Amino acid sequence: MSEPKETPPSKLSNLAVRVLTSLVVVPVLLLLLFVVPWWGFFALGLIAVPIAAQELTGMTMAAQKLQQAWAILASLGVYAALYFSPTAEMLAGLLVAVVAIGFFVALVQPHPIETAALRMGWLVATPLYAGGLLASLAILHTLEDGGAWCALAMMLAWFGDTGAYFAGKGFGKRQLYAAISPKKTIEGAFGGLAGSVVAAVSMHFIALDQMSIWHAVILGLVAGAAGQAGDLTISLVKRSANVKDSGWIVPGHGGLLDRIDGLVMTSAVTWAYAAILLPKLS
Amino acid sequence: MSEPKETPPSKLSNLAVRVLTSLVVVPVLLLLLFVVPWWGFFALGLIAVPIAAQELTGMTMAAQKLQQAWAILASLGVYAALYFSPTAEMLAGLLVAVVAIGFFVALVQPHPIETAALRMGWLVATPLYAGGLLASLAILHTLEDGGAWCALAMMLAWFGDTGAYFAGKGFGKRQLYAAISPKKTIEGAFGGLAGSVVAAVSMHFIALDQMSIWHAVILGLVAGAAGQAGDLTISLVKRSANVKDSGWIVPGHGGLLDRIDGLVMTSAVTWAYAAILLPKLS
Repeated sequence: MSEPKETPPSKLSNLAVRVLTSLVVVPVLLLLLFVVPWWGFFALGLIAVPIAAQELTGMTMAAQKLQQAWAILASLGVYAALYFSPTAEMLAGLLVAVVAIGFFVALVQPHPIETAALRMGWLVATPLYAGGLLASLAILHTLEDGGAWCALAMMLAWFGDTGAYFAGKGFGKRQLYAAISPKKTIEGAFGGLAGSVVAAVSMHFIALDQMSIWHAVILGLVAGAAGQAGDLTISLVKRSANVKDSGWIVPGHGGLLDRIDGLVMTSAVTWAYAAILLPKLS
Repeated sequence: MSEPKETPPSKLSNLAVRVLTSLVVVPVLLLLLFVVPWWGFFALGLIAVPIAAQELTGMTMAAQKLQQAWAILASLGVYAALYFSPTAEMLAGLLVAVVAIGFFVALVQPHPIETAALRMGWLVATPLYAGGLLASLAILHTLEDGGAWCALAMMLAWFGDTGAYFAGKGFGKRQLYAAISPKKTIEGAFGGLAGSVVAAVSMHFIALDQMSIWHAVILGLVAGAAGQAGDLTISLVKRSANVKDSGWIVPGHGGLLDRIDGLVMTSAVTWAYAAILLPKLS
């Protein structure tokens, strides 16, 4: 799956490594979500955001280190700004600065010219993706029942992955999106949606009864679809940049992006539901 | 300068056409800034934002009409959201939506794959550039003495252009940035800065005495430099996309972007000064 240079060699099967990694990661996440004070989960973002930004810029502006450094810094800025949600004016100012300074930084290393426009786009898109979408997960944690909402966003993504994996293995026949992810099947996608619905309905019973069962079903479908689409978007970047894995940070899982490309989208949808829609509906 | 197909044929010299165009545009701008109620200048943005977004996407995703349409719509959304400055939470939600939906839209037309990452970047960058930077000019108009602040932002850009043009013509020797704008000279750049300083100092005497002369000089230098860099950024996009003019909307001036690439940056800097810095300093 991955090139030897990029992932540590291992005699364990990929699935076994993934399971072992999960055995470490999941308890840490649970501690950060439910036990450690607010700054613990926020600080996890301060680690994840620059890694995600580094992986994205590693694909889109690999040779331009200064531009990568700026994009990473700007991603942290967007993450912190959205999290601490200052005034709307400050946020607007930050946005204007992100696009203006990002473009100026592009001028410092304009070569090769043919790909300069690609870098300019990603000097703006990277902070919004890595900083903005991960902020939606961090903000979710600050809501009432924040730990449970975050756990839900994660379950929506990872139950979805798991459902897709097994449904695809068992029944997969028709390709979902051959151009960029030839192994994914329509049957797998439906299994993924089912997994996400199971995640949401479970959380209704476990900790989030303010979300009705019907809401849970709809959220499972919408966030599950968004998560799967989010997975495809990063596959599209990788394929367009001719890269196989976005990184090597998570043993057995490839890069961090490969692990969170669905999660950032389920987070965004869960946040929109929990912070904006639900208060208006109830 | 421009290809016959893109600009209407004309027997007048380029300079004469530019002067004639200005004779129409300047009085209209003055009316909108100082006479017509607030919605007049805001509405001008509703025309300029989609044109700017169309020109940008015309260079970065010319064949993908659906993606262009989304980028134009999102640009209008960002423009209106920043202008009406809702809560920080709504603004954060908008940002997250711009990046998430933008990436999803990229999946609808992924071909050609090699340039898919370019389009993804610009699906996010276009709304922030066209919507966000033009919003900074529109917001400037809502401040106290808003008409004068907007006039200042425009003068910073256009006096700068004019200063650069004549200084470059008279004394231009050393190339400023050969890779993307071979005709620009260092001497022209200094002339441009002088023009911007003249603009700011003039406005100190005419209408904005809350801005001290020293502030005017510094603002002229900083905003003037930002405006010139803004000009270069769009030149870089054009050169990277192998396009000569970004459009044909302004007779004698090429596309709208060619006309406002400096202005959006002088606006952003003037806004940062007038709305954020000045209230804290005085």
